[in-house]
Amino acid sequence: MHLDGDLVALFRAVCDIPSVSGDERALADAVEAALLECAHLEVHRDQDTVVARTTLGRDRRVVVAGHLDTVPLTDPPNLPVRVVGEGAYADVWGRGTVDMKGGVAVQLALAAELVEPAQDVTWVFYDNEEVAADRNGLGRLARNRPDLLEADFAVLGEPTAAGLEGGCNGTLRADVRVPGVAAHSARAWVGSNAIHAAHEVLDRLAAYAPQDVEVEGLVFREGLNAVGIRGGVAGNVVPDECVVTVNYRFAPSRTVDDAVVHVRDVFAGFEVTVTDAAPGARPGLDDPLAADFAACVLAVTGGAPAPKYGWTDVARFAELGVPAVNFGPGDPLLAHKDDEHCPVGELTLCRDALRAWLSGARP
Amino acid sequence: MHLDGDLVALFRAVCDIPSVSGDERALADAVEAALLECAHLEVHRDQDTVVARTTLGRDRRVVVAGHLDTVPLTDPPNLPVRVVGEGAYADVWGRGTVDMKGGVAVQLALAAELVEPAQDVTWVFYDNEEVAADRNGLGRLARNRPDLLEADFAVLGEPTAAGLEGGCNGTLRADVRVPGVAAHSARAWVGSNAIHAAHEVLDRLAAYAPQDVEVEGLVFREGLNAVGIRGGVAGNVVPDECVVTVNYRFAPSRTVDDAVVHVRDVFAGFEVTVTDAAPGARPGLDDPLAADFAACVLAVTGGAPAPKYGWTDVARFAELGVPAVNFGPGDPLLAHKDDEHCPVGELTLCRDALRAWLSGARP
Repeated sequence: MHLDGDLVALFRAVCDIPSVSGDERALADAVEAALLECAHLEVHRDQDTVVARTTLGRDRRVVVAGHLDTVPLTDPPNLPVRVVGEGAYADVWGRGTVDMKGGVAVQLALAAELVEPAQDVTWVFYDNEEVAADRNGLGRLARNRPDLLEADFAVLGEPTAAGLEGGCNGTLRADVRVPGVAAHSARAWVGSNAIHAAHEVLDRLAAYAPQDVEVEGLVFREGLNAVGIRGGVAGNVVPDECVVTVNYRFAPSRTVDDAVVHVRDVFAGFEVTVTDAAPGARPGLDDPLAADFAACVLAVTGGAPAPKYGWTDVARFAELGVPAVNFGPGDPLLAHKDDEHCPVGELTLCRDALRAWLSGARP
Repeated sequence: MHLDGDLVALFRAVCDIPSVSGDERALADAVEAALLECAHLEVHRDQDTVVARTTLGRDRRVVVAGHLDTVPLTDPPNLPVRVVGEGAYADVWGRGTVDMKGGVAVQLALAAELVEPAQDVTWVFYDNEEVAADRNGLGRLARNRPDLLEADFAVLGEPTAAGLEGGCNGTLRADVRVPGVAAHSARAWVGSNAIHAAHEVLDRLAAYAPQDVEVEGLVFREGLNAVGIRGGVAGNVVPDECVVTVNYRFAPSRTVDDAVVHVRDVFAGFEVTVTDAAPGARPGLDDPLAADFAACVLAVTGGAPAPKYGWTDVARFAELGVPAVNFGPGDPLLAHKDDEHCPVGELTLCRDALRAWLSGARP
């Protein structure tokens, strides 16, 4: 893996080492070995997370982070990647091309290239982002080596189609329980069918109008969705319970408590049990470093700041007190899809914008 | 186990030998041993099914059948049974008292007592009625020894609160599928939520008005119920499918084909897959033997003929071409319940009515 050669060749090399969550060893080894060649970087390893940092004594330090893992391979695997098209207009197809080996390739190239950036940079390549939160390599690093994540600002290379995405919605899951009275289905009239009664819950969901909420100039689209429904115990029993699991994605201007109140209001009259909740993260675009980076991205890629949909590790940095944004190549709507593919043009745009800003050569 | 003593003592003895489906051996052994004491009976055994028949050369033969097994014991087991109250007004509490060891006790007492009945009688005590149809002891006997089930009429001792119940509804199960388009729940607007769309299916079920259908003078109550609903793959995915499993109980005047057409009509616009169907059984009360028995039951117990709700082995006899009715002690609504209990009064009423009719001493 050569960090100082062609960016597309590096991108392909990163993609062609499979690294499904829990199986990132080979890629982490290759990344570590390549970074150890760079005399200007101090390299650390925590399981399959690799950290490389400059130590120039700059006034400010920026973390640029990306996860090494991908969701499971397609069947059959679509690796090695295919390049379709020519030059700057080519697309690279295969698992991980969008989420998020493009970001990883950009980071590796700049880690090697920027020997004397204007700000000190901590490059983080971490494992297990696509699985349960308790396995997340960034979370583990925050527990094992919090000093390595100290920074004034953070950029996560998640796919944003080369635009800057800041903040994220909060998320809340709740079970809405509809009771009934069990009976043999041959004598249904002695019971009360909980599934039939759940029509009211589904009617409210179908009629629900989600809000758009502006926070620090970005418009966050909210959503309230059933993500599960279950009821019934046997083919001849009128069920005495139906449970609808709902997921509310709420703007970062609302607290988790606000969100709980809202969901209870929507399902007034039913038993609502909150099972899981995480606050959103405000965009952080009022932070001067963030505003500066946003201006640089706009100038280089044309991407205006937008909200990030989906809960990303930006929120994890927010909890650490580090303002953070997402910025990386690839259409986020293609993440996890079997047909994920990334335009080479976005790869180079992202590299150019990040290079300009980190080197202080901002246009 | 003494067949010629007190009926309540016999009932208690039958109840106190646990016989959960698949574990009827001890009770079948006791039943077989007791019947072998009766010189007027020819006794057969097929696994845990025991058959005892008179061979008097009468013009007519009647099968009187009951299952030996029960649903699983309560926790903790409520055996041995408890007798609450005095004499004819006592109730016997415990697993199997309703479904259907009262019927079994009546059959055993009369099998021993009626040495020269007016009709030849085949007494059948069978296993595995409370489990999957392919394990049913009566079905197995029909395959192994169909000759032993040849008869002009059959009485099943299932609980009917000492009234006569004839015929049964048919049953049909179908899956109603509602499609959607999957999406991440953080970007729900790019998908289409199948669970939300299922509100229409539940609305139709909630608004459905079941029919009452008269067949041979008996009114059969129909019913259409959701017995299951499922949808959702993960807590952050807008589901692309929701499946509602419905169970239609239809009057025996309708064919399975009629029932299929009706269910497809109710859920017009949705994909309906029939997974399971069994026809009902007409009451058979136009059969002279059945009419005669009904008159006898009415005179002795006061019980007018009524439809049986629930699919019972009456339908199995109907398939063999043998008209059949249910008649036994115990409230059918208490069957399978942890608090099942049977009035001693119904036990003796059932014995008296069956004795009168079989011995030709009909009032």
